[in-house]
Amino acid sequence: MELLDRFFSGDIRALSRLITQVENRREGFRKLLGDLSKKTGRAIKIGVTGPPGAGKSTLVYCLTSLLSGAGTKVGIVAVDPSSPFTGGALLGDRVRMGELPSDGRVYFRSMASRGATGGLSSATDNVSMVLDAFGFDIILIETVGVGQVELDIVDACDTVVVVVVPESGDAVQTMKAGLMEVADIMVVNKADRQGAESLAVELKHALHLRTSTQDAWETKVVTTQANQSIGIEKLHQRIREHLEFIKANDHFDRHRRLQVQKKILAILSHRFRREFIDRLAEQVDFDQIVDDVYRGRSDPYLVADELYQTYARSHPS
Amino acid sequence: MELLDRFFSGDIRALSRLITQVENRREGFRKLLGDLSKKTGRAIKIGVTGPPGAGKSTLVYCLTSLLSGAGTKVGIVAVDPSSPFTGGALLGDRVRMGELPSDGRVYFRSMASRGATGGLSSATDNVSMVLDAFGFDIILIETVGVGQVELDIVDACDTVVVVVVPESGDAVQTMKAGLMEVADIMVVNKADRQGAESLAVELKHALHLRTSTQDAWETKVVTTQANQSIGIEKLHQRIREHLEFIKANDHFDRHRRLQVQKKILAILSHRFRREFIDRLAEQVDFDQIVDDVYRGRSDPYLVADELYQTYARSHPS
Repeated sequence: MELLDRFFSGDIRALSRLITQVENRREGFRKLLGDLSKKTGRAIKIGVTGPPGAGKSTLVYCLTSLLSGAGTKVGIVAVDPSSPFTGGALLGDRVRMGELPSDGRVYFRSMASRGATGGLSSATDNVSMVLDAFGFDIILIETVGVGQVELDIVDACDTVVVVVVPESGDAVQTMKAGLMEVADIMVVNKADRQGAESLAVELKHALHLRTSTQDAWETKVVTTQANQSIGIEKLHQRIREHLEFIKANDHFDRHRRLQVQKKILAILSHRFRREFIDRLAEQVDFDQIVDDVYRGRSDPYLVADELYQTYARSHPS
Repeated sequence: MELLDRFFSGDIRALSRLITQVENRREGFRKLLGDLSKKTGRAIKIGVTGPPGAGKSTLVYCLTSLLSGAGTKVGIVAVDPSSPFTGGALLGDRVRMGELPSDGRVYFRSMASRGATGGLSSATDNVSMVLDAFGFDIILIETVGVGQVELDIVDACDTVVVVVVPESGDAVQTMKAGLMEVADIMVVNKADRQGAESLAVELKHALHLRTSTQDAWETKVVTTQANQSIGIEKLHQRIREHLEFIKANDHFDRHRRLQVQKKILAILSHRFRREFIDRLAEQVDFDQIVDDVYRGRSDPYLVADELYQTYARSHPS
């Protein structure tokens, strides 16, 4: 049977193979994604982000456990190199992760976070597309919320959960790190620790001040103790409320269209770059040009301008 | 007097204004950077990265203090939203930072880490260029070493210092996070804490196993207690050794040429994207195309291909 047929019949090994093809941008992956993309759009994407050590993976584990127990099919994509899903954590964590159902209701995949060809954000999005086409109901995407690319990844999700702990600093720091800006729901995890309650109050206050327009979602604050499975149902409830809210007005639609637009432009940018380099390699002595800039005989902006003109002139029309 | 004249005469306020122009990509910033770029290439760029809470800013402060005390002019660029240089830390930290010389030997600037037009990496590089042209001897670039873009930023420096603490996990996690890969020098900070010594031993072992070729620099491990100014001279010594090493063979040269090449390609990518969007806006109904993809009537790869052909055909030749 063809790989794609096996994929559509629910074969997990076929799923893994397709993900690898897409992640490594193997020959034909564009055609493959094109074919799959018509089967996508059904899954809900939930991003979970926050500083290292906030307990994101444990929370993702608890959510997955709750969801899969109710029959929901959950795909997990971990972009966090320290996540136990990627094998980056303590043995105990890894064993516990093994307790999730292994009958195909739950699938997890970690992303190589450095040097992804074409960009980490694009690679993560492509892997999500494959999971969506396979039939997962919910895709949980875990990233470390410190880098720009990583925040962009969760920003592309339907609902964004930001996880913090008292140790990760006060509300001001959360705001400055750009975490509050992307959050639909803020989780104060490890709620039994000192400072958790005051952090939750602080965040509520800051978020309340922020909400500007009447039809905007007001970010909710939930306290949890993920390692004790405390607060998970409340979190799940908040996620559902958020999804209902954005579907009831046009936020969901608008946000997804924007993501489609971004995706098309990202594919194009990548293509331009590739074609440009191929073409230039035949026409100009790029090493010489680099050398001129390096030695201060020219400047990168001038050179880029000249190269662009060369490209434009040579383009078949 | 013209702004640029004031800049070249060493006026700090002119420096700040030019940086703002460049960071915000104001009208004419390309021409400006082009003009400045011929005056660049003299400054040494040192990247300091590591997980949040590792004490990067304190270390940068100590290094700056040591260097400026010896007459070296130091420019600091903080890409870390939680850095005290960006105002993200405790009051005590900020006051202490104020003790650095204010006579123009030291200058610091924080980068807005979210939503930098044209990319954070490019913005940071442009700001470094301005500092280089102004005449700073050393540029210290502080980033949070968790995100891909942030690691790329320090990777573009001549010397990369990675700061870890016992709390940031073991050597395996450091490796997985991509931190070891970019490090020329690894600092185990907060060396008085439990686990610091064993982490240093572990790192040395892992690094020793890694070094493959004979002419490659073997990453050094330094232990420090930055808040007590302990170990800073040793670190400085190691940085000098690394710079001597890369200058004695062709690593320095090769790495800088590679950075020039990357910069030219980044400028071009940005330009293509801009011109492409302008051109398409006149020719196609982009909203309709997005809608087709959104509704599953087409796929993003197919659409990107068609748009590329439209662009190619319309291009003046």
